[in-house]
Amino acid sequence: MVSHTESIALRKRAERETLVKEMEEELGLSSEHSEDEQYLSSSPEQIVQNLKARREGWTVERVTSAFIRSACAAQRRTNCLTEIVLFREALAEARRLDKEFAASGKAEGEFWGLPSSFKDTYNIIGVDSSLGCSPHCYNPTEKPEDEATMVKLYRKAGGIPFCKTNIPQTLLAFECRNPIFEATSNPYASDRTCGGSSGGEAALIALKGTPLGWGSDIGGSLRIPASYSGICGLKPVRGRWPVLGQRSSTRGFEGIKGVVGPMGRTVADLTFASKAMLNLVHTTDVGLRGEMLSPLPWQEVEIPRKLKVGYWTQDHLIKTSPACVRAVEECVAKLKAAGHEVVYFDPPDVAECMKVFAGLTSAEGYKTLLSNIGNDPMESSMRLVTLGSKIPHWLHWVVRWVVDNVLKDHLFASIFATSRGKSVKEVWNLTERRDDYANKFREAVWEQHKFDMLLCPVQAVPALQHGATKLLSPLSVGTILFNVVDSTVGVLPVTRVDRALDKHPTDYLEGSQGSWLLEKRIYMGEGCAYDTEKMHGLPVGVQVVGKAWEEEKVLGMMAVLEKLVGYQG
Amino acid sequence: MVSHTESIALRKRAERETLVKEMEEELGLSSEHSEDEQYLSSSPEQIVQNLKARREGWTVERVTSAFIRSACAAQRRTNCLTEIVLFREALAEARRLDKEFAASGKAEGEFWGLPSSFKDTYNIIGVDSSLGCSPHCYNPTEKPEDEATMVKLYRKAGGIPFCKTNIPQTLLAFECRNPIFEATSNPYASDRTCGGSSGGEAALIALKGTPLGWGSDIGGSLRIPASYSGICGLKPVRGRWPVLGQRSSTRGFEGIKGVVGPMGRTVADLTFASKAMLNLVHTTDVGLRGEMLSPLPWQEVEIPRKLKVGYWTQDHLIKTSPACVRAVEECVAKLKAAGHEVVYFDPPDVAECMKVFAGLTSAEGYKTLLSNIGNDPMESSMRLVTLGSKIPHWLHWVVRWVVDNVLKDHLFASIFATSRGKSVKEVWNLTERRDDYANKFREAVWEQHKFDMLLCPVQAVPALQHGATKLLSPLSVGTILFNVVDSTVGVLPVTRVDRALDKHPTDYLEGSQGSWLLEKRIYMGEGCAYDTEKMHGLPVGVQVVGKAWEEEKVLGMMAVLEKLVGYQG
Repeated sequence: MVSHTESIALRKRAERETLVKEMEEELGLSSEHSEDEQYLSSSPEQIVQNLKARREGWTVERVTSAFIRSACAAQRRTNCLTEIVLFREALAEARRLDKEFAASGKAEGEFWGLPSSFKDTYNIIGVDSSLGCSPHCYNPTEKPEDEATMVKLYRKAGGIPFCKTNIPQTLLAFECRNPIFEATSNPYASDRTCGGSSGGEAALIALKGTPLGWGSDIGGSLRIPASYSGICGLKPVRGRWPVLGQRSSTRGFEGIKGVVGPMGRTVADLTFASKAMLNLVHTTDVGLRGEMLSPLPWQEVEIPRKLKVGYWTQDHLIKTSPACVRAVEECVAKLKAAGHEVVYFDPPDVAECMKVFAGLTSAEGYKTLLSNIGNDPMESSMRLVTLGSKIPHWLHWVVRWVVDNVLKDHLFASIFATSRGKSVKEVWNLTERRDDYANKFREAVWEQHKFDMLLCPVQAVPALQHGATKLLSPLSVGTILFNVVDSTVGVLPVTRVDRALDKHPTDYLEGSQGSWLLEKRIYMGEGCAYDTEKMHGLPVGVQVVGKAWEEEKVLGMMAVLEKLVGYQG
Repeated sequence: MVSHTESIALRKRAERETLVKEMEEELGLSSEHSEDEQYLSSSPEQIVQNLKARREGWTVERVTSAFIRSACAAQRRTNCLTEIVLFREALAEARRLDKEFAASGKAEGEFWGLPSSFKDTYNIIGVDSSLGCSPHCYNPTEKPEDEATMVKLYRKAGGIPFCKTNIPQTLLAFECRNPIFEATSNPYASDRTCGGSSGGEAALIALKGTPLGWGSDIGGSLRIPASYSGICGLKPVRGRWPVLGQRSSTRGFEGIKGVVGPMGRTVADLTFASKAMLNLVHTTDVGLRGEMLSPLPWQEVEIPRKLKVGYWTQDHLIKTSPACVRAVEECVAKLKAAGHEVVYFDPPDVAECMKVFAGLTSAEGYKTLLSNIGNDPMESSMRLVTLGSKIPHWLHWVVRWVVDNVLKDHLFASIFATSRGKSVKEVWNLTERRDDYANKFREAVWEQHKFDMLLCPVQAVPALQHGATKLLSPLSVGTILFNVVDSTVGVLPVTRVDRALDKHPTDYLEGSQGSWLLEKRIYMGEGCAYDTEKMHGLPVGVQVVGKAWEEEKVLGMMAVLEKLVGYQG
């Protein structure tokens, strides 16, 4: 018998398949349209410029058609799309813009004629924001005012939202699989995940299925997919970018603040998107619906000619793989060679940071989170994370004791200990610990060391195989750190895994003080998660970290680094 | 037998008395120094200017001595001070500055030579931040880095912190009494409270015992004392002013964000203090200790010549008294006469706002709050507020049922219902309701009506008698509203209670839809709280409300209003 979830999932996927097929029939296949390459390879900024300049062969319809063809191809390859009835609307809008432009010469707006994809969490009129959960299917955003403010602003500036992209069930994973749309694959390896939760977005961008995309991040959701899929992303802190109109799976939770940000192929693409959007917030008549945003429009900044960079390669929680260490070290070498001051900085007590994050996010026992799922089967990637708060207290204590005393993984035990339902008083204590940790971290980095930026791995490993995050959820500590510390962070790809350079020696874990339960699973034995033979060629990104609300400087520093490393996507 | 609390209280008060006496002996009485008037009547800005210009008769020591004399007199009259060993340090610093100035001509800093008082919550090296609780007595701030950032900045700019001022026990009251320092009286009526929690500050400023003061606000703590005591105050929102180094009675609580702000005799004084402090944050080398502040230094703004003002006189929760209605209406008349556009705006569902506030602040059953008290006797003003979360659930339900069904006060019952310990899930729900309420409110006011400012009462009544807040805590709804909605709010005095003009008719409550339990206590029968005979001459303030982070515009609009009303303190 087909379950309710399955019947909805089958219907959603069938509709999607029908739409892809229709598009393929109407517009043809991407592989058969070699002329598309000029559009697909252009930057978003160039696309808008070419369109406005009426460059030969360029119309909004042609550009949009090319990206729909390419998105369909990306969908065939990675299963990265969710809501694509928007394709039809986008084509209609493209034709309308072309017609209007021809008639009036009017082509206004920073994103004029530019198609863009949005993570499934962005409410868009007429389609679902399902979070991969059947209870949210066939419950589309109906009122224009309920669209995500970011989408409204994008439209207002002439842009064309043309599809939504896949996410993990309830967003709580750094894989990208859910029972409705199933898994999205890594653009570089079909047996691996593209990362999550903004995973479909990353895969689509990497495959040139969209000029530009929009993701969100509460623990690495924008940065992990960027690193896994070899693209760039910017995670701001809350305050400048409107988050209203995002479907959250944890409404009312504010212990860690989710944020939205741009994703793209290059730093220049992020800069173009950020500049336009941050100015739009303060200039258009698109209402913010009461959302409080700092009066901080985009402001050009000069990047110091000699940057002071703090970097690390190890967080002492989970040993970073040679590939991800090399990614940072190559950047360090190039920054030094270019005359920048680069010094090692040891991140303080990252375990405390992880405890605070796990403690806060699990505080109400994942009731709100799980309420999204209804009777849907739970993805394996969510099980370990939600386990701690679902088992009875005595069992929680036993598990912790065993991990601590029998398995002797004190780190894992201490983090597991904080992951359970709590009293409000405990939450207040954790909130205080969060602020203490974040303040001390920021004081050390920005006031004592006076760094311009921090440089560090995104995660200990490159893209994992589908399903592998199941028991490795604490791997996201590398990104979680900057949700707790609340920093502006960019991710850019800097190298690729090399089977020769990046193989780890058998004694790689010797002397490690990290969580050996996790490290063993990553580095030891048959089928361990880190395997350079299987990972060869996968992209590896780094995090470029700056102060809160300094998007301009972070992007500027990312551009400096991007130029130095000369990564080829 | 003398209790532990009493013995500490007696010792603290004896020490304070000794210091006042010593100062009176060494420096003489304020009443005997008629030359002091030139210092006491000068604005903070003039004081700094005169000192720097070496105006005849002006030295830092003379200014400081004059304010110490005046503060001692204010203490004798209202009992407004807490930690005053700072008097001696201030005198020493004053002499040092004079000497240095004489020798080097160096007099740098926006606050150079200016004494200033601070609410007891501001950590100052060497003295307690007791919150009026014995467990915090004789536990002074020891390390220089632990001083409140605001105090450090004030010092850095040449200012001299010279005393701390009284607060209610744990800050949770809008009276100003605690078992250690006892009650502070209203500067206009010794049988009345100066308001709370920044009450000592307001009394001291009103009596010219300090040129300038610094308070804080999480539910009206800066605004209510300003209104009760006839001075001006500015409540910013979180983000521009450093709050690190404040002693909080509810550490880890972030459902409503406490803020700090300046208090003074005139709007110009607030503007002087705000401009200097907001620039200091971004220019001095005083570290922020990791605190995240928006990069928003002071920015001059032009106030529109024709302001669009929304106002109300009633919030429909507790009927506003004729005096407080008149305060607003007189402003309205003058604003209209000056050509501004003034329209009535009915604040939406203020009861919901109150429920959200009561629900969030009571969420962990006041455990953290009450832990400050130890075995100290609880002030009566705290009892009703904390009652809801201390009685068993069944009794809570019974009380609520009685209030709702027998006493027929549905409003009071519904607010009381939310005031009890909660689960984390309930807190998330309330947080969501808070955001929904605040967003809708802000959208209506700033986006739909496009008001420049809102004008409304601070509270339904002028200063109450000591002890009267005991059963009237929901009166603070008028200020709480803007902690929930998160707005920049200034308070300025605009009139005084007039026994003839402001008497309420016997049928004043007819047709009122507010909480009649509260309204009855305020307006009906012998000894009702609102009594113009007894209140004659008390100052009455209004709230001038602007957007978040728009201190400059709010102060500018306050100045417009101040000039129009021409209030004499």
